[in-house]
Amino acid sequence: MNQLKNINDNKSLQSIVNEISKNALDASRIVSTASSDVKNKTLRSMAKLLRDSGKYLIQENKQDLDYAKGKGISKSMIDRLLLNNSRIDSMATSLEEVAQLNDPVGEVVKMWKRPNGLYVGKMRIPLGVIGIIYESRPNVTSDASGLCLKAGNSVILRGGSESIYSNMAIGAVLHEALNENGLPAEAVQIIPVTDREAILELLKQDEYIDLIIPRGGEGLIRFVSENSTIPVLKHYKGVCHLYIDEHADMDMAIDIAVNSKVQRPGVCNAVETLLVHKNISDKFLPLIYDKYTENKVEIRGCDRTKKILKEVLLATEQDWHEEYLDLVISIKIVDGIDGAISHIEKYGSLHTESIVTESYSNSQCFMNRVNSSTVMTNASTRFSDGFELGLGSEIGISTSKIHAFGPMGCEDLTTTKFIVYGNGQIRN
Amino acid sequence: MNQLKNINDNKSLQSIVNEISKNALDASRIVSTASSDVKNKTLRSMAKLLRDSGKYLIQENKQDLDYAKGKGISKSMIDRLLLNNSRIDSMATSLEEVAQLNDPVGEVVKMWKRPNGLYVGKMRIPLGVIGIIYESRPNVTSDASGLCLKAGNSVILRGGSESIYSNMAIGAVLHEALNENGLPAEAVQIIPVTDREAILELLKQDEYIDLIIPRGGEGLIRFVSENSTIPVLKHYKGVCHLYIDEHADMDMAIDIAVNSKVQRPGVCNAVETLLVHKNISDKFLPLIYDKYTENKVEIRGCDRTKKILKEVLLATEQDWHEEYLDLVISIKIVDGIDGAISHIEKYGSLHTESIVTESYSNSQCFMNRVNSSTVMTNASTRFSDGFELGLGSEIGISTSKIHAFGPMGCEDLTTTKFIVYGNGQIRN
Repeated sequence: MNQLKNINDNKSLQSIVNEISKNALDASRIVSTASSDVKNKTLRSMAKLLRDSGKYLIQENKQDLDYAKGKGISKSMIDRLLLNNSRIDSMATSLEEVAQLNDPVGEVVKMWKRPNGLYVGKMRIPLGVIGIIYESRPNVTSDASGLCLKAGNSVILRGGSESIYSNMAIGAVLHEALNENGLPAEAVQIIPVTDREAILELLKQDEYIDLIIPRGGEGLIRFVSENSTIPVLKHYKGVCHLYIDEHADMDMAIDIAVNSKVQRPGVCNAVETLLVHKNISDKFLPLIYDKYTENKVEIRGCDRTKKILKEVLLATEQDWHEEYLDLVISIKIVDGIDGAISHIEKYGSLHTESIVTESYSNSQCFMNRVNSSTVMTNASTRFSDGFELGLGSEIGISTSKIHAFGPMGCEDLTTTKFIVYGNGQIRN
Repeated sequence: MNQLKNINDNKSLQSIVNEISKNALDASRIVSTASSDVKNKTLRSMAKLLRDSGKYLIQENKQDLDYAKGKGISKSMIDRLLLNNSRIDSMATSLEEVAQLNDPVGEVVKMWKRPNGLYVGKMRIPLGVIGIIYESRPNVTSDASGLCLKAGNSVILRGGSESIYSNMAIGAVLHEALNENGLPAEAVQIIPVTDREAILELLKQDEYIDLIIPRGGEGLIRFVSENSTIPVLKHYKGVCHLYIDEHADMDMAIDIAVNSKVQRPGVCNAVETLLVHKNISDKFLPLIYDKYTENKVEIRGCDRTKKILKEVLLATEQDWHEEYLDLVISIKIVDGIDGAISHIEKYGSLHTESIVTESYSNSQCFMNRVNSSTVMTNASTRFSDGFELGLGSEIGISTSKIHAFGPMGCEDLTTTKFIVYGNGQIRN
């Protein structure tokens, strides 16, 4: 780590971060007007150069791995940190996919004519400078850079200290691609300082940075939003609910309940609580019990659930708040759709909720009344993801309602300006 | 003032604000699902009851006026504070106009089909609870309440201490209208405490409030954004520019330059700096000098301007940063469109910039490269206003890019959720 800090020994942390931010703003003025063609060529150069730099990247990554092993970091953390040829290839492929996306910049989302003859429209423009604060996975460095560039923004990246060598190496490769295509290297900058104070400095640069996206645990996100004078897109947690209505198709309900929990339990769009209509609980609960048991899912049920499934644990009040991120699920019997919705309003995290039903009215009621960022009928909560929903790629998931709500794609890294075409109009 | 505080003597400031916020969230769940019909009827009841309550409102307003006069507040401030029958009528008319607007809630802004058959859409939903912090004009109380209700939100209003009796009285009338139409009175709440600490308490209620909109001077806005853990829509200032291109129609340029400055100089969309192409400065500057002098506008010119208009003051560096809000304008001669744009990038406030030109390419260049919240060709900067742009009404103007950029209407008080219609899809 010391090597990195020494580069900047004679500069204060404050001046390093301030200079990075200023340079990012200058660079953003160039990338904001770059043509789609230039941006896409740069993305493809980035992909090619990453693939060509496998040896260098793996060698730099080894320094991070050695440091992590020395610190006795868990196996799963080390696995997340690891770069190998196949992971580098998938980073490159992601960048090529971003090159394929529509360019959101310049899209006129609407346009109308005023009685005085003015044509008024709203045109998408880049946000400007985006700061991304994230934890161990080095692929975020290239994924986030690609999406920010595609939307015409500069990006400042502050990864975890445990992946600093990997991130700096990926950054160096991306710079080469920017240079090759006549774009400023400062459009993608990695903060070369691993102190947590660097985050605090970054969060003060509201003169230069337009948006901060923290990606990581709840602690990191709270720290960022409490200390930032720059707007923050928050993603606290995903306490997702699946409501099995009395009019559900039983086979579909079982499939969706299993898939939503089991297919990948450690992620935010996995279901945490199953709400079951009392009229079908006798039939549904024994079926799902068998499936969950088969898949090693631990069940924690409400008192009414325990009357049907005597073997399960009794859920505590805390269970309804819990994001298990594991093969654990809580189950509650409700009297109907109103009970399901009020449970979601009380305990939900505004992430994703799904209903399984064949009733048109109950689907409409659920879809309209539940105002979580993603609401579904007859689909697994696991589809609540930028790629699965068709955004092309995902920069994060917002569970606060300002600017973007739910999975965010490239378009969410833009804003709109008003464009007005007149022929001499003045106000009376 | 004491009377108001005494009502709550036995409650701490913290518990008052916290209770208001919680009640606002509960009420928002009801107004968020209210039909357009009910919301519009309520808006019309509000208008009728305001008109019917003229005597009461004027009487309560008199307490504020007496207090203000006692404190020796300026005539213009007292004028802003004043309620009379004609002002009450125009508050009522505004509410009736909001009733006429399209209801943004429930609009599906796009919808698409995924390869696996899922239909995915984005539907507009209310933000939830909006906090508005503002200064003297009592009409903001009803204007903001109307727009928030139309978009299905609860609103918490914190007006200035100088208008507390007027605001509480307007609030009481609005509550009657909400009650009459079966909506909770807590959908519109006025904070009955005039201490500045009440603002600090409000800014901590991030569990209940989704957005804070401060309306007032730069000091208020900085105070709010520095102390809020809730997202804030900022509007700092409007240093608007008008660029007279070498290919401008001279008559049009004069009309727009005069109108942009003179029609109402004290507002944020009035022009502050004129940028003039060097090739037409000899011709344009003497013409505009006559017109500005006729209209009592003080000119502060760059050194090149002073060579043509010897009588004007020399502009200092500070002038280019200045939002005069008065009959004062700075003028700078530039070598071309690049010079105009770099001046705007350096000194602008991202509010509104306009070009006067007959050149298609220069218009396109300006419209695409200038990323202020409103960019115009051949129109007065004074059109940068929610009503003039066709948004129906305006809740504020955002000069930061997150969530909304530029004049904000009813639609900007909503967000979108993803809606997903499946038929049993699960993830592989």
